[in-house]
Amino acid sequence: MNEQRIQIVQNILSANDAIAENNRQTLKQAHLFSINLMASPGAGKTTLIEQTVKHLSERYCILVIDGDIATTFDADRATAAGATAIQINTGGECHLDAVMISKALQQAQLEMFDLLIVENVGNLVCPASFDLGTSMNVLIASIPEGHDKPHKYPSMYRGVDLVVLNKIDLLPYVEFDVDFFRKGLEALNPSVEIIQVSCRTGQGLSSWINWLETKIKAYRTT
Amino acid sequence: MNEQRIQIVQNILSANDAIAENNRQTLKQAHLFSINLMASPGAGKTTLIEQTVKHLSERYCILVIDGDIATTFDADRATAAGATAIQINTGGECHLDAVMISKALQQAQLEMFDLLIVENVGNLVCPASFDLGTSMNVLIASIPEGHDKPHKYPSMYRGVDLVVLNKIDLLPYVEFDVDFFRKGLEALNPSVEIIQVSCRTGQGLSSWINWLETKIKAYRTT
Repeated sequence: MNEQRIQIVQNILSANDAIAENNRQTLKQAHLFSINLMASPGAGKTTLIEQTVKHLSERYCILVIDGDIATTFDADRATAAGATAIQINTGGECHLDAVMISKALQQAQLEMFDLLIVENVGNLVCPASFDLGTSMNVLIASIPEGHDKPHKYPSMYRGVDLVVLNKIDLLPYVEFDVDFFRKGLEALNPSVEIIQVSCRTGQGLSSWINWLETKIKAYRTT
Repeated sequence: MNEQRIQIVQNILSANDAIAENNRQTLKQAHLFSINLMASPGAGKTTLIEQTVKHLSERYCILVIDGDIATTFDADRATAAGATAIQINTGGECHLDAVMISKALQQAQLEMFDLLIVENVGNLVCPASFDLGTSMNVLIASIPEGHDKPHKYPSMYRGVDLVVLNKIDLLPYVEFDVDFFRKGLEALNPSVEIIQVSCRTGQGLSSWINWLETKIKAYRTT
């Protein structure tokens, strides 16, 4: 990149960080635990949200902000599962940013909710650069994507608080070395936790639900 | 986006298009048929390249330009399969652009080769905006990604000349409606061809190899 372009990118990221910090304060005041859910296209973000809402919606009020290039498919699925959903269509932008989230937060009575899940655009590169102001960043990796992805997309794997390794029901049918994946991840992000699930069969979902519930409760007391 | 940012993006894309046109002329003069191979992370770009090289390297000289955020994994695999490979590490950039390709083309004796495969960064959004100057754009879709992807990533699906639908060996194990996928694609791109393959089992690969060989031969006579 030339110097002018580097300066412009830095300005965009600084402005984003400032608004993300505002979002973080807004969510804090509403005692609303929030996650930024990121992944490649088709890794299972919407399916994990559906499962999460089904498991938790009797005990917690859940708000979902869905980011997509086009369509309202994902927000429709979150609503059908029992969440309140706000759709953001980015119209071509490859990631959500803090301004989009700030506008979406103004559309909801945040105090009503216990959990906010932001479903980012399906992309393993660009969302890593844009803090949204959520409490935590969660990445879904997927067995058929292959075990080399932490090595190849380091900025994404470096910045997350939890990795949900989805589609483990496909392990018998594809080549995926869980140890190689784990080593690649630990080299970038030594303290990160991995939860293995299959959203399709339900395997491992209780670990994810427990993780989430522990975080929601801990956040309320801070 | 604000007006200043829109102007900057338009300037970047115009400059890219001009250099892409130069690349197209350079490749034309070398009689080198070329494809820009795009897909999500883990859809099977590198595996399709390995299979292609194995099937065609006795009859054709193949040059691969590999774009990755980090690592030389993909170029190493292309070389091991029998191609000449040039690695581009974008260092964080989410797509290849025409300047990167122009520089890579200067590193090879283009007249020696019959086929150039450019493996783009794994991303279903950003590469769609950057013409590289290749003869054709090919997209790999993957069964476990889900059948809704043409609807959700329209700019990518709209601009391609061929869709290779990979991992069809996983059809019994995931929910994927081939007709729904096909209808979504045809609404955006009515004339596009779909070739169904499994790079893992080899199913359907002969159709892909035939397609490619027909294009290589036709390009030579233009």
